[in-house]
Amino acid sequence: MELYLFGENFFEKHLLTSAGQLTELLKGPHKIWLNISGLGDHKLISELGNLLNIHSLTIEDIMDAGQRPKFEEFDDFVFVSTKMIYTKRALEELEIEQISLLIGPNYVITFQENHKDVFDPIRTRLENPTGRMRKLGSDYFAYTLINAITDHYYKVMEMVSEANEDLEDQIIKARKKVKLEDLYIHRKTLQEIRKNTWPMREIISDWKKSDHPVLNEKNQIYLNDTYEHTIEILENLELQRETITTLVEIYMTQLSIKQNEVMKTLTIIATIFIPLTFIAGVYGMNFTYMPELEWEYSYLIVWVFFILSAGLMLYYFKKKNWF
Amino acid sequence: MELYLFGENFFEKHLLTSAGQLTELLKGPHKIWLNISGLGDHKLISELGNLLNIHSLTIEDIMDAGQRPKFEEFDDFVFVSTKMIYTKRALEELEIEQISLLIGPNYVITFQENHKDVFDPIRTRLENPTGRMRKLGSDYFAYTLINAITDHYYKVMEMVSEANEDLEDQIIKARKKVKLEDLYIHRKTLQEIRKNTWPMREIISDWKKSDHPVLNEKNQIYLNDTYEHTIEILENLELQRETITTLVEIYMTQLSIKQNEVMKTLTIIATIFIPLTFIAGVYGMNFTYMPELEWEYSYLIVWVFFILSAGLMLYYFKKKNWF
Amino acid sequence: MELYLFGENFFEKHLLTSAGQLTELLKGPHKIWLNISGLGDHKLISELGNLLNIHSLTIEDIMDAGQRPKFEEFDDFVFVSTKMIYTKRALEELEIEQISLLIGPNYVITFQENHKDVFDPIRTRLENPTGRMRKLGSDYFAYTLINAITDHYYKVMEMVSEANEDLEDQIIKARKKVKLEDLYIHRKTLQEIRKNTWPMREIISDWKKSDHPVLNEKNQIYLNDTYEHTIEILENLELQRETITTLVEIYMTQLSIKQNEVMKTLTIIATIFIPLTFIAGVYGMNFTYMPELEWEYSYLIVWVFFILSAGLMLYYFKKKNWF
Amino acid sequence: MELYLFGENFFEKHLLTSAGQLTELLKGPHKIWLNISGLGDHKLISELGNLLNIHSLTIEDIMDAGQRPKFEEFDDFVFVSTKMIYTKRALEELEIEQISLLIGPNYVITFQENHKDVFDPIRTRLENPTGRMRKLGSDYFAYTLINAITDHYYKVMEMVSEANEDLEDQIIKARKKVKLEDLYIHRKTLQEIRKNTWPMREIISDWKKSDHPVLNEKNQIYLNDTYEHTIEILENLELQRETITTLVEIYMTQLSIKQNEVMKTLTIIATIFIPLTFIAGVYGMNFTYMPELEWEYSYLIVWVFFILSAGLMLYYFKKKNWF
Amino acid sequence: MELYLFGENFFEKHLLTSAGQLTELLKGPHKIWLNISGLGDHKLISELGNLLNIHSLTIEDIMDAGQRPKFEEFDDFVFVSTKMIYTKRALEELEIEQISLLIGPNYVITFQENHKDVFDPIRTRLENPTGRMRKLGSDYFAYTLINAITDHYYKVMEMVSEANEDLEDQIIKARKKVKLEDLYIHRKTLQEIRKNTWPMREIISDWKKSDHPVLNEKNQIYLNDTYEHTIEILENLELQRETITTLVEIYMTQLSIKQNEVMKTLTIIATIFIPLTFIAGVYGMNFTYMPELEWEYSYLIVWVFFILSAGLMLYYFKKKNWF
Repeated sequence: MELYLFGENFFEKHLLTSAGQLTELLKGPHKIWLNISGLGDHKLISELGNLLNIHSLTIEDIMDAGQRPKFEEFDDFVFVSTKMIYTKRALEELEIEQISLLIGPNYVITFQENHKDVFDPIRTRLENPTGRMRKLGSDYFAYTLINAITDHYYKVMEMVSEANEDLEDQIIKARKKVKLEDLYIHRKTLQEIRKNTWPMREIISDWKKSDHPVLNEKNQIYLNDTYEHTIEILENLELQRETITTLVEIYMTQLSIKQNEVMKTLTIIATIFIPLTFIAGVYGMNFTYMPELEWEYSYLIVWVFFILSAGLMLYYFKKKNWF
Repeated sequence: MELYLFGENFFEKHLLTSAGQLTELLKGPHKIWLNISGLGDHKLISELGNLLNIHSLTIEDIMDAGQRPKFEEFDDFVFVSTKMIYTKRALEELEIEQISLLIGPNYVITFQENHKDVFDPIRTRLENPTGRMRKLGSDYFAYTLINAITDHYYKVMEMVSEANEDLEDQIIKARKKVKLEDLYIHRKTLQEIRKNTWPMREIISDWKKSDHPVLNEKNQIYLNDTYEHTIEILENLELQRETITTLVEIYMTQLSIKQNEVMKTLTIIATIFIPLTFIAGVYGMNFTYMPELEWEYSYLIVWVFFILSAGLMLYYFKKKNWF
Repeated sequence: MELYLFGENFFEKHLLTSAGQLTELLKGPHKIWLNISGLGDHKLISELGNLLNIHSLTIEDIMDAGQRPKFEEFDDFVFVSTKMIYTKRALEELEIEQISLLIGPNYVITFQENHKDVFDPIRTRLENPTGRMRKLGSDYFAYTLINAITDHYYKVMEMVSEANEDLEDQIIKARKKVKLEDLYIHRKTLQEIRKNTWPMREIISDWKKSDHPVLNEKNQIYLNDTYEHTIEILENLELQRETITTLVEIYMTQLSIKQNEVMKTLTIIATIFIPLTFIAGVYGMNFTYMPELEWEYSYLIVWVFFILSAGLMLYYFKKKNWF
Repeated sequence: MELYLFGENFFEKHLLTSAGQLTELLKGPHKIWLNISGLGDHKLISELGNLLNIHSLTIEDIMDAGQRPKFEEFDDFVFVSTKMIYTKRALEELEIEQISLLIGPNYVITFQENHKDVFDPIRTRLENPTGRMRKLGSDYFAYTLINAITDHYYKVMEMVSEANEDLEDQIIKARKKVKLEDLYIHRKTLQEIRKNTWPMREIISDWKKSDHPVLNEKNQIYLNDTYEHTIEILENLELQRETITTLVEIYMTQLSIKQNEVMKTLTIIATIFIPLTFIAGVYGMNFTYMPELEWEYSYLIVWVFFILSAGLMLYYFKKKNWF
Repeated sequence: MELYLFGENFFEKHLLTSAGQLTELLKGPHKIWLNISGLGDHKLISELGNLLNIHSLTIEDIMDAGQRPKFEEFDDFVFVSTKMIYTKRALEELEIEQISLLIGPNYVITFQENHKDVFDPIRTRLENPTGRMRKLGSDYFAYTLINAITDHYYKVMEMVSEANEDLEDQIIKARKKVKLEDLYIHRKTLQEIRKNTWPMREIISDWKKSDHPVLNEKNQIYLNDTYEHTIEILENLELQRETITTLVEIYMTQLSIKQNEVMKTLTIIATIFIPLTFIAGVYGMNFTYMPELEWEYSYLIVWVFFILSAGLMLYYFKKKNWF
């Protein structure tokens, strides 16, 4: 339980161990950011729930990491539940972590599944006494948190874009051997990002339209950006999806073209030589009475026939544009 | 006809045999849950209809198991008709059972097609005197019932997910022989779940927005969860569907790639040996005048030609990236 | 022109020959159902139009069988135009017949293209003096008519479902030879049903919401059922369509798999024997100087080579999982 | 510049040469239809624009034939811009011509790209002194014009339907050789009709809802028909499109089936005879020591082997359902 | 920093170097167009931001070239951010440049990424003292700018159309060898144009509906055109997309047809000659006891068999419509 107390001329960082310590601080003059990493300590979270008068269903939402992102208004605070997406490399399994925000009049409480988060730049900016974050209310602080989360989506999207360009190189340019597995994983990644990003649009839209007292109308303008980023990410995902569909289609067409070429090669060779081999076979027969065998020019004539026949075939295939 | 009478400090379980017994109880101080399993007893159900002043169309809706799920408000009660989905194993035919709820001021009546249901945990919780179920009204009790139903959808979805992962293993990883029938049954299962889950969204949304007197506004918050679960299930179904589509596409591509390889093998072998066989055939002809036959180095030259020709062909196929 | 006069204690059936006869009856105490089969008698219909003050455009709508279904309100009556769908067997051409209803304060007039209709059960129920149909107003009577029409859609849908199951058997189970024509006709049937059912949804929705004086608000509840039936039929159609799409896809995949097998058989046989045949051809050449021919163990060695070569090939194909 | 002056008891046709002549007539008691064919005479059109107080942007809309259809209300008149579609034969390039209507209190001015139009029946009906066209206002006249235009779409649709049935015959019934070009042109035609019909829906919907003073509310009912025709055409186009998609799919499946048959034929013949030819080749070798050659029954045995082997192969293919 | 001062009788062009110079001019009687090319000079832009009271988020939007187009209203001005699309040739990478407009009561400020723009015709028209641009307000001027931008989209669309027609020629008419890469690039271009054009629709719609004081209601009519152009471009893009889909489908079908023909050729030749070659092989065997070899007419009979067999095969293939 990281605790940050801050105001225009004030900044302190504590490590909290029990919910009780918070009671006094909430009445104090400073803004509070309480960051709880790990959802294992049920007792602590329900103590906090009693302290802040949180409905038991909301407590369940905070603790159940499989929740769909949502925005809910309560009497004393606003509750936002969303997802952080991590990835180390493209085409790797995504890590999805739930993060819940309680935005009260002078506090923001964040609940994370584990210790990894995307808030380090915010921790740094918080130490800067002249920053807007120190001057404006807890709603502005919550906005910077949500913004940090969606900004991280961009980084994930960049990796996805790169993976897409790799696939493009494999299929369109280098015509390297394509790993179908990559294609599949790639699509699943896009699906999963979409599943987690799609509700963000709704949440931030609700947040923007909310007139809850803890949300200062003046600061709502800062959400516009986040809203547009979310839409951009969704549009981008749609583009990536279409690109993959197109790539698969082109890959299938390439396969068809190649198969056609293979077939043509086989057909040309077989069609030319099979009849000739038959003729050679005929004059290899051992019948006693085969008048041609004794003729002086038979062998020459047969060769002339072989060459003419092959030539005609080739001409026919040429005319049919087979090579 | 299972009958549960319960209140904050009261819990009794009866087995009712006629509708008439209910008249007194409805006027009593206790909340009532009447669970009717089996829709065969027309007389009993219409007696109950008369007793509670149920419209004949609603009676028909209760008895006709093929109904689309719906939410309807009447003067004295709220009528909800929905579906329970059972499955023993993935890729097995689903069992769909209709369940109708009548929610009155102090009673909930459930009509089921047969004795199997998903309410055992509720029966257990009802015996617990400190549970919310005993304190809050009949609307909260109805909410726990509907929640039990949608929670069971999750279990079905899990089996479907597993079947999907099996298919994924078959196609993507182990490249085992794929049973097309499985694919077909799988899709049909998804369709059927969707058909029965889709109207749930609407019903619960109507329920949430309803301001019918038997529905206590304070308890409506408990429906939010159920609503979100339904949306999650629908989103999940959509994901599963896309995954299957992708899998089928990849399977088709694998088939094309394999066919291409088969064709290449055939073409390489045939293209190399068919012309050579022709040449061998030529020198197997029995013409009297074939000067080459007597030359001393003919046989050697022919072998040199065979080897060169095969080598050239192989070089050509190599250059074309055929192997 | 079938004419039914009915009231709570009254029932008569007449055959009308001219529109004039109607004038008196309309002022009478009884409810009237006038059923006109055949749209050929222009004069009669326009006389009726004048009598009842029907706009000329509505007359045109009644007479033009190609009309899109619609619901329109006029001063004195409500006009509903819809379609009856008949089919004898699945995969047979559908018969679509237009039927128009004029619903006035104490009369319902139906205009049909020909004598075939789906109203026989209604004719029977009309003779029953205790039925609701006799007690409630003309709007309820119109509801029973429209209900009879949509109920008949179910029968058509059942035949379509059966045809779908036949296709399923052909493709998935028995793997019988599939008739592509069936598939095509099946899809066209679904399209045509959809084209005629889709506007029903809108019409009945408009009807439900209408507050026209001839429509008794109390009876509107009876339309809910019809509305839900229509939605069910549309959802069912959508399911059938998806099923066909899936079936076609699976059929295409089966074809690909079969072609792959055929290709493999050819390739295995050809790849084993073509090189061997070449070797046999070589030793069938008639060169004078072929040292191997005289060696004692040549023939044996050649056979050993034949068997080894074939064995190796088979091993290679086995390893490649070709059989 | 064709000019028609008409009223209940009046009908005159003039050929106007300058816009100035119109000034007097507009003040007169008669309704006016001015039909301007050809958009080349810029001066005349802008004179007219000044006379009638038309905004320069509207003048531009009239003159620019590439405009999207639209409906706009101005102080003195209503402006409608739409498209006429001509075609001589199915699968021929469509001719699209823009037609703009200015509907004033007592005049309708039509601007066409060239002299060809679909208004001849209207010219004829105008001469009939008892027609509604002569009695009702300029808005009713405009309605007949727009109705004539959409009616003509039906004729185009009929040709498209016929072309579709031809394709159906080619693919499904006669299994004639399909011209892929036809398929492509057919689709493009559907697209182009759709592109021009789609905005009609919106236009007529706007027109219907408009309460501009030149549009008599009573006559708006006549637009219902046109609106429904437009929707019907759009639904029909959608059906045609689906039909083509289905046809293409079936055609592809037919191709696959045929290819499968061709492959099977090849495989059966090759698989039977290639091994036999190898055996024949073996006994055609010229080794000195080949003991079988001298055996008395060798030749017979070989033939028995040939026939047995071929028979076994055929049995195997039969069992695999290959023929 | 190009600066244009203009009014009904006034026109001057300046090159501004610092934001400070602007202060006086903004209070002056003339309308101002300030065009800033290049977003590198952060200091200048933020000076300008302070001078005009621009929110820091808007400054960020101006400087971040990756922004999604948008329309925002502020107290003193309206902010529009959009994209210019350049292309030299079809199937070349598009150049997308962001352009932001600040529309104040008497000024328009444009921020471009670099010096290339589409405003030269506007610069020329500005010098014309009788043009509307000089008379009407800054909002009209902004309209001409946005119109110039969307007009340029048409030029890009024309190139895309031409590329599409080339593809059509390649596939449908000349049946030239198709470059799959072209197809891919073409689709990506369409996607990118769409991505940048799609938000334009929304922006201009918002602009049209805006009642911000700097936007004169009378001039809003000029936006209608731009709005319709945007819709036309989007509809056109949709058409192009469908066309490409159709072309790809036809190309795939052509490939299948060709492959079918290749297969048939191979099968006909192989099926005729492989059995004959076997027979020839049989009579080339060297068994001592082969009675047929000595018969006088054996050779003749064999030839008769060869010809009959080939003839029968050809007849069979003819009947199967294989050539």
